[in-house]
Amino acid sequence: MLREAIYHRPGGQFAYPTCDGSFQIQLRTKHQNVNSVNLLYGDPFEFDQENWKSTSSQMLHSGTDGLFDYWSVTVFPPQKRLKYAFHLKNDESELFFTEKGFTDHVHKDFSAYFCLPYYHRSDAFKAPEWVKNTVWYQIFPDRFANGDTSNDPAGTLAWNSIEPASDSIFGGDLQGVIQHLDYLVDLGINGIYFTPLFRAHSNHKYDTVNYFEIDPQFGSIQDMKEVVKESHARGIRVMLDAVFNHCGQDFPPFQNVLQHGEASPYKDWFHISFSSTGDIQYETFSFEKSMPKLNTQHPEVRKLLFDVGQFWIRECHIDGWRLDVANEIDHQFWKDFRQVIKRDHPDVYLVGEVWHDAMPWLNGDQFDAVMNYPFAQLLHQFFAYNVINVEQFTKSLQHYLHQYPKPVYHTLFNMVGSHDTPRIVNLAKMNKQKVKLLSVFQFSFYGSPSIYYGDELGLTGDQDPGCRKCMEWDNSRQDQDMLTFMKRLIHLRKQYPVLGNEGEFQLLSYDINQNSICYQRENSTEFVIVVMNNHPEKQTILLPLQLKDRTIFDLWLSKEFAAHSDQLSVTLDGYDFTLLLIKK
Amino acid sequence: MLREAIYHRPGGQFAYPTCDGSFQIQLRTKHQNVNSVNLLYGDPFEFDQENWKSTSSQMLHSGTDGLFDYWSVTVFPPQKRLKYAFHLKNDESELFFTEKGFTDHVHKDFSAYFCLPYYHRSDAFKAPEWVKNTVWYQIFPDRFANGDTSNDPAGTLAWNSIEPASDSIFGGDLQGVIQHLDYLVDLGINGIYFTPLFRAHSNHKYDTVNYFEIDPQFGSIQDMKEVVKESHARGIRVMLDAVFNHCGQDFPPFQNVLQHGEASPYKDWFHISFSSTGDIQYETFSFEKSMPKLNTQHPEVRKLLFDVGQFWIRECHIDGWRLDVANEIDHQFWKDFRQVIKRDHPDVYLVGEVWHDAMPWLNGDQFDAVMNYPFAQLLHQFFAYNVINVEQFTKSLQHYLHQYPKPVYHTLFNMVGSHDTPRIVNLAKMNKQKVKLLSVFQFSFYGSPSIYYGDELGLTGDQDPGCRKCMEWDNSRQDQDMLTFMKRLIHLRKQYPVLGNEGEFQLLSYDINQNSICYQRENSTEFVIVVMNNHPEKQTILLPLQLKDRTIFDLWLSKEFAAHSDQLSVTLDGYDFTLLLIKK
Repeated sequence: MLREAIYHRPGGQFAYPTCDGSFQIQLRTKHQNVNSVNLLYGDPFEFDQENWKSTSSQMLHSGTDGLFDYWSVTVFPPQKRLKYAFHLKNDESELFFTEKGFTDHVHKDFSAYFCLPYYHRSDAFKAPEWVKNTVWYQIFPDRFANGDTSNDPAGTLAWNSIEPASDSIFGGDLQGVIQHLDYLVDLGINGIYFTPLFRAHSNHKYDTVNYFEIDPQFGSIQDMKEVVKESHARGIRVMLDAVFNHCGQDFPPFQNVLQHGEASPYKDWFHISFSSTGDIQYETFSFEKSMPKLNTQHPEVRKLLFDVGQFWIRECHIDGWRLDVANEIDHQFWKDFRQVIKRDHPDVYLVGEVWHDAMPWLNGDQFDAVMNYPFAQLLHQFFAYNVINVEQFTKSLQHYLHQYPKPVYHTLFNMVGSHDTPRIVNLAKMNKQKVKLLSVFQFSFYGSPSIYYGDELGLTGDQDPGCRKCMEWDNSRQDQDMLTFMKRLIHLRKQYPVLGNEGEFQLLSYDINQNSICYQRENSTEFVIVVMNNHPEKQTILLPLQLKDRTIFDLWLSKEFAAHSDQLSVTLDGYDFTLLLIKK
Repeated sequence: MLREAIYHRPGGQFAYPTCDGSFQIQLRTKHQNVNSVNLLYGDPFEFDQENWKSTSSQMLHSGTDGLFDYWSVTVFPPQKRLKYAFHLKNDESELFFTEKGFTDHVHKDFSAYFCLPYYHRSDAFKAPEWVKNTVWYQIFPDRFANGDTSNDPAGTLAWNSIEPASDSIFGGDLQGVIQHLDYLVDLGINGIYFTPLFRAHSNHKYDTVNYFEIDPQFGSIQDMKEVVKESHARGIRVMLDAVFNHCGQDFPPFQNVLQHGEASPYKDWFHISFSSTGDIQYETFSFEKSMPKLNTQHPEVRKLLFDVGQFWIRECHIDGWRLDVANEIDHQFWKDFRQVIKRDHPDVYLVGEVWHDAMPWLNGDQFDAVMNYPFAQLLHQFFAYNVINVEQFTKSLQHYLHQYPKPVYHTLFNMVGSHDTPRIVNLAKMNKQKVKLLSVFQFSFYGSPSIYYGDELGLTGDQDPGCRKCMEWDNSRQDQDMLTFMKRLIHLRKQYPVLGNEGEFQLLSYDINQNSICYQRENSTEFVIVVMNNHPEKQTILLPLQLKDRTIFDLWLSKEFAAHSDQLSVTLDGYDFTLLLIKK
């Protein structure tokens, strides 16, 4: 057995408490190197008794990424306390693994075992329940709809008159959103994420000048209250963008420092060095001089930003904060921010912008979710670019599924594009069938899926500023086929929670020549088999389940049929799919 | 190259910020499988430029535990932001390792690299500086000295009249400590850790009845103030024991619940279930019915215990809290406790009782240290029991040295015995030369070493209650040889900080047949070579360094000599050692 491949350490995805009172335990071994793993466990305080009461539980082989196999088990220790070790077997040998390393026999010294000292619910990852049933819609306010031309700044361009440039203003505003809420209801979404709305100079408003004011170009705080009220009346939640890593250069405290230098009471609000000649060097977001980095370790800055976090919840009853450049702010800030927010509003959703591995933020003490760029990128590679085949996709997907504690997957913010990426249609080189197939995966997987405004009707656009084009409100120029498709997909997700976070995901089979994949979503009463033909040509794909004499309901076509053969197959056009519901 | 053995993930000991502004990065590979590792790194926001400015730094091979090699490097990113990946080479091949896995060539897609988004000092592990220069002395109050017979409870036994039983009372008290402070000064220690002093029924006082009162058997809060004042006057810090996991059964809120059942306002202060027949089931420490477990997630309990934490600092100016059964209290409690304490008293030392791998508590947001039982057990195995040989010892030591971020090792509470273990002399089967050798290792290593009262003069005793014998104050019954030895050892540690936390530890050589080991402690101006003969017979041990013509100072014998030969060796009696200082 390859000892070097075996990994476990309490914490992260490897051992953690869940809200239901259990501990989840995961082990990693070399792929196809171990036949079975048993968890041997007991209470830490029975260790000095003659006959230590230990229990053995078989671990489930929960997946492989090609390099490693993963094993998992759920334990409910009677005293909430746990000492445990792993007993691994293959055809040639057995191995015992404790905190102190490996032995080739069962290790009787329980003090060497791994320890989960006591189950505390306060240490379990816990995100708002409503997020699990939410489909998001991301709005870039200047580009969604102009509902009030009286607030258009000088130089506002006619709607959709040109391709957006980095400094274009098109006049979108909050009244525009209110006027189109019924469009969003019809689409089926039930959450709106707004990129920044607070006073700032740029069109994207990531250079905040006043954190307590809606930019006049978008309306007023009254408009914002109306947006939330009207949204809530329609069952739609509202999330705002918290830009706390940096401010705009016209943020008054920063201007004060520019004017008064070291004499400014705000000099420590930023990361500034003053030279003897009076020069001021300051840190910024990226290399963007218009965005000075805030010192989020400074008590006054912390207080200001905590106040901002509370203000918009208190005043406008918003439901969530998306946290801009969250990874560049200190963990201590986020730990405290979470406590400040959740103390009075435990149901507010906190989503960090973290593009990479986000484990350090997802242990339950900081964020409820991150914007799930790694997931988006994986879907792009397989469905949009076709640069990885189905085998690489499934391996990467399994790898991804063993990176975080399981409860985390249910609330991750799963967009496939944003204001910071080319639009999904462009990523798929305008092949909309590919976009549809990708969207089916997005909507039949864990997480809280999000649609970037206009993607639902085929809006195109390359990297920023191209991806920030005006929303298309001219019916004749909307892709009605795509819109109908997305409505149906959203509807199905809502109608069948098994497709979302109330079902277990299980890979059933894939065919590397066909580039086809077959997976299942399952709960206690039903399961849905999803078959995808990620190939340009029509193909017949074998279902890897025995379904003879079962009644099968084709969810997409709303058609019921009975399986008559032992071996069932489906014939799918290029980039087509099917969703088959079977009652248990 | 064995991909399965390669491990890195930001967090823990693998990638962390330090107080000096650097990031420390560690990589694990299979032992003797990789010849060199380079860290390729750059700024995350230069990734879309034509020529990404990356830097390559060679990683240092920092040790091996026989199964794995460890590599480390320090990086000071100019913008405080870091994207990085590993470039590994051996004779046959090369391998590139990013967050997305392995490639056999340098991966140019920087978005896949590992990320340390921004350096924040607030996220660095930081313990009080004074701890690095502290030698602790642990006092079990009932057994150290009886300085005031007027507070002796009925049934107090004559000092040292019998072997202690689990309910013996011998009358030790705070006046006794004050009267013997000069003994402690003479011994050389500069920190006292008291096991519990607050009102409780048992002799060990781990069953608190009143957290705000010194047990009358030990004295009063006035006595406690005097202890701290007199200690501080002698340069000695004082640490108390915070028993927050559970209380005693006579703790008034618990009694209130026993009386009033579900009607008690304190019913949620504990983990209690009330049956319909009026039975009360409650959780306890271990299976100890006299110690009901507190619900540290309850706001009122949290407030009470935070108040206790602050009270004794404010009233008596204590310098540290040792946190009993710390691992069974929720992390959220400790995160908040740290903030409450450190806000006004950043220099208070927080030491958790965690017997196993303590990484989850040592990320900088909870404890400054843990009681280092794994380290103690390793020393026992090699020096006291001789159940592992020098090769196993060095492998385990290297493994241990790669388990935590480096700064953690400097403040760990390194005792070799406590009130919860047999005494070190007993562990060494009464072979005091073994105890001395073990102590030399303890005092010439990182950490904050601690002496359990009486160990310095050869007190014996088996597992509790044996290890809680009365302190021996009769000179003729003290082991004066051991006492002189310990004084000298403590003195040397204080005189030569290179032996403690101001020197780098480096293993130089070991000889498996001799069971001898040779290691070095080094700073910028000098180094000490420690040679140990962990074998019953006299042996001549080769020094693995070229020291010809260097002046060598024998620290233990205070004797200077010059090396005249190319190959230097030392001849040591069984279980003897030497400490050789060489100026650079």
